[in-house]
Amino acid sequence: MAAFKNIIFQSVLNRIFSNKTSAGLRFNFSRFKSDGAVSVKSLLQDHVVGSNVLVKGWVKSLRKQKENTFMHIGDGSAEQIQVIIPSSLCHEDCCFNSAVVVRGKVVQSPKVNQPIEVKAENLEVVGRLDVECFPFGPRKIYPPEYVRQHIHLRPKTTIYSAILRLSSLITTTLHNTLIQDGFISVSVPILTSNDCEGAGEVFLVRPASEELCREMGNNEKLEESYFNKRVYLTVSGQLHLEAIAGGISKVFTMGPTFRSENSRTRRHLAEFRMLEAEIAFCSDLQPILSTIESLVKQSARSLLEHGKQDLATVGAYYKENLEESLDDLLKKGFSTITYRQALELLLENKNSFNKSPQDGADIGSEHELFLVKHIGGPVFVVDWPAKIKPFYMRTAEDDHSLVSCVDLLVPGVGELCGGSLRENRHSILKKRLEIQSLAETLNWYLDLRRFGGPPTGGFGMGVERLISYLLKIPNVKDIVPFPRTPHHCPM
Amino acid sequence: MAAFKNIIFQSVLNRIFSNKTSAGLRFNFSRFKSDGAVSVKSLLQDHVVGSNVLVKGWVKSLRKQKENTFMHIGDGSAEQIQVIIPSSLCHEDCCFNSAVVVRGKVVQSPKVNQPIEVKAENLEVVGRLDVECFPFGPRKIYPPEYVRQHIHLRPKTTIYSAILRLSSLITTTLHNTLIQDGFISVSVPILTSNDCEGAGEVFLVRPASEELCREMGNNEKLEESYFNKRVYLTVSGQLHLEAIAGGISKVFTMGPTFRSENSRTRRHLAEFRMLEAEIAFCSDLQPILSTIESLVKQSARSLLEHGKQDLATVGAYYKENLEESLDDLLKKGFSTITYRQALELLLENKNSFNKSPQDGADIGSEHELFLVKHIGGPVFVVDWPAKIKPFYMRTAEDDHSLVSCVDLLVPGVGELCGGSLRENRHSILKKRLEIQSLAETLNWYLDLRRFGGPPTGGFGMGVERLISYLLKIPNVKDIVPFPRTPHHCPM
Repeated sequence: MAAFKNIIFQSVLNRIFSNKTSAGLRFNFSRFKSDGAVSVKSLLQDHVVGSNVLVKGWVKSLRKQKENTFMHIGDGSAEQIQVIIPSSLCHEDCCFNSAVVVRGKVVQSPKVNQPIEVKAENLEVVGRLDVECFPFGPRKIYPPEYVRQHIHLRPKTTIYSAILRLSSLITTTLHNTLIQDGFISVSVPILTSNDCEGAGEVFLVRPASEELCREMGNNEKLEESYFNKRVYLTVSGQLHLEAIAGGISKVFTMGPTFRSENSRTRRHLAEFRMLEAEIAFCSDLQPILSTIESLVKQSARSLLEHGKQDLATVGAYYKENLEESLDDLLKKGFSTITYRQALELLLENKNSFNKSPQDGADIGSEHELFLVKHIGGPVFVVDWPAKIKPFYMRTAEDDHSLVSCVDLLVPGVGELCGGSLRENRHSILKKRLEIQSLAETLNWYLDLRRFGGPPTGGFGMGVERLISYLLKIPNVKDIVPFPRTPHHCPM
Repeated sequence: MAAFKNIIFQSVLNRIFSNKTSAGLRFNFSRFKSDGAVSVKSLLQDHVVGSNVLVKGWVKSLRKQKENTFMHIGDGSAEQIQVIIPSSLCHEDCCFNSAVVVRGKVVQSPKVNQPIEVKAENLEVVGRLDVECFPFGPRKIYPPEYVRQHIHLRPKTTIYSAILRLSSLITTTLHNTLIQDGFISVSVPILTSNDCEGAGEVFLVRPASEELCREMGNNEKLEESYFNKRVYLTVSGQLHLEAIAGGISKVFTMGPTFRSENSRTRRHLAEFRMLEAEIAFCSDLQPILSTIESLVKQSARSLLEHGKQDLATVGAYYKENLEESLDDLLKKGFSTITYRQALELLLENKNSFNKSPQDGADIGSEHELFLVKHIGGPVFVVDWPAKIKPFYMRTAEDDHSLVSCVDLLVPGVGELCGGSLRENRHSILKKRLEIQSLAETLNWYLDLRRFGGPPTGGFGMGVERLISYLLKIPNVKDIVPFPRTPHHCPM
């Protein structure tokens, strides 16, 4: 951090003292001086009573009294600073959620839980608020469905800005945990000419300009002219990630993925983020399970270490004690059961379900939630019937009707992760692809087994679902800033 | 890191000692034990001479002698370990680029520059190589155009795997530098119903299934049925980022963006990554310039600190001394000139160009490269004519024909970044949107100025172009793992 500040400082110095370039030109830099504004967070951390400060932020609350107005200002961190404004400085435009710039002096606060406050000497409203039309009032709590109707203003609310900060903390933790564990971060394409699993509804892409399409190809198939073939939005980066894992043994990506399904549940989006990782030289499920578990737990740990205030805000809104539930999560190991064991459990309790569990079929959402409740926490379900799983999964060693794969089920959400060992035996994979008529389009994927392809395995984790689980936010639409769902893409 | 390892350890312990869940089920965990394999990097770091190790990787080179075969094994980190294999253990399948697992003992190396080596006691080839058909031979250097023809195998090459590792280092540094500077990482949508700048060619998206389209909407306009409107792939997340900056004063995103242009230069892709940042309460260009400069420099610093070996590999391939050029970059401040000054410089030298610079017009690629060469390093060009810039840029204080914006030009690449202050005066922005018939679709964007919108500013940086600049890789196709360009999306 010090090094980082040094760079900026050095660059500012360079600008001030060397306003001649090697070309001998003279330039004017005076307008680029910093105004010395300080963030609310650093003000609270490094306060010096008596110093003059410049604070910029939104009015989070205000309370008018005869001589002074007491105002809380926040700039997007979890913290707020109390500012005392003499009545003579206060004017009409200065209201809840307006954007203000305050010059003043840091003073000791009489209250115990707020060490300092700022006594304003100057107040400027730099962003007025049209109070009549603004959909949110001061000190009011609205249900998420209402807030979602004003999606472009949602980041202004206390709850949603806390969710944004905690989400940022989680994605940063996921990234850095993998980097520290020796993974390389890569980008895999969103535009692809094959759809990973041969399953799931995909979106088709073509240039919007029909003129361009005609110029570049033929009139008949506009959607094929730009790339010479039909191109889709990816449903998973796995196959591409496997190609990269042909040279680098631990890789991951955290990109958007897409489904054009007509699903309208609280857990589905047309566009969502997936953390996908691939591990080469992986011949049993253990490294996959360990990596998943550590990612979930590191996220929980980060939230507890760096997000306490926001956790309290979000928890209060959803009536959950998040600190307690995250502490609990960290205390226990995740359980592991086989599909067979899961099925037995479900069949023993089949009267509890709307839809009866079927041997050899997928496990439904209500069954997933039963399992995590019954077992008492996150559970890995391993070794599923081959016939309901995609072509790339590796046959289990001890039972050829099964594949070595795993679903992680978690409370409230159900399926959070799916992973598997990949079938790396060239002849077996080739046969499977031929049966599914994929051998030609996936010839490149088959090549990975011809040219020094070790056993590999990997997983995909729904990032929004992880956030939903950790923060106990029931609807993923309340996590993504601009959710896309059937019949809904307003901006 | 210690905490991280503890979690995994604890979880393994939990699995071993508590194979009963709260539901009283007994499960079998024995198959999930780690095999104790060690990465090449950690082996070289924490070597204990005399210990038994298990190493997995690809054969990077091998040299057969009468009694022993000397092999270098790499697993995707920059390092390789030398393994000595007695002839009795060596077999035909064990060749360049095959995937192997070696059990052996760590021994002292007789050579000075490699402290240890491994004496193999067992060797297994876990991924054979079809030598006849493999496009790369041992100890051969191929031009990038050739390597690109075998794109799914490219990560197996020494050069490209080094580029992947350095790219991961750069993106991680960009992310963490912003986080440390108080920015929040957010995701903005790829699917959007408006195209940020009203410029640039966009891709159109609809479900691939026509049946689904008909079910969800009408037969006439298949592309509107899923979302009830035409939906595109984003060309920039800026407008959405601005909405988030309405509640959190420093935000960024690093997502894919798309252009359906028919450009076939070494600098253009149909899908590329852009780092976009937005700063609220930003009323001059200084914070934008500082942030950009520090991101570029922090990236250079990280490369020098953590990527020396890979820098040497990539530099040797492209015949560049990367360590020297990065050192140089860190030594000087970036220059700043106005569009007017840039133009004067260009006009003075107009005979050097194929196409003459035009007053009031955009600066062409050859002009950009001239400017950075003439000035001797990265240069910010500020204050451009309003008429050639998009609607959202703020009018300059001192000249109303100009807007407060910046392009960063860098050697070899030209434009790396574009940024601006945003027009936050409601009435001015409204008029502009009305003139461009955007007032209705961008009503939400206008709202940001009605409801406590402070002055904001931000920028977008092409991530592949940054990598191209820092590593002196002339063609961005040699950076992205799976480049998408006109007529090209093979997998």
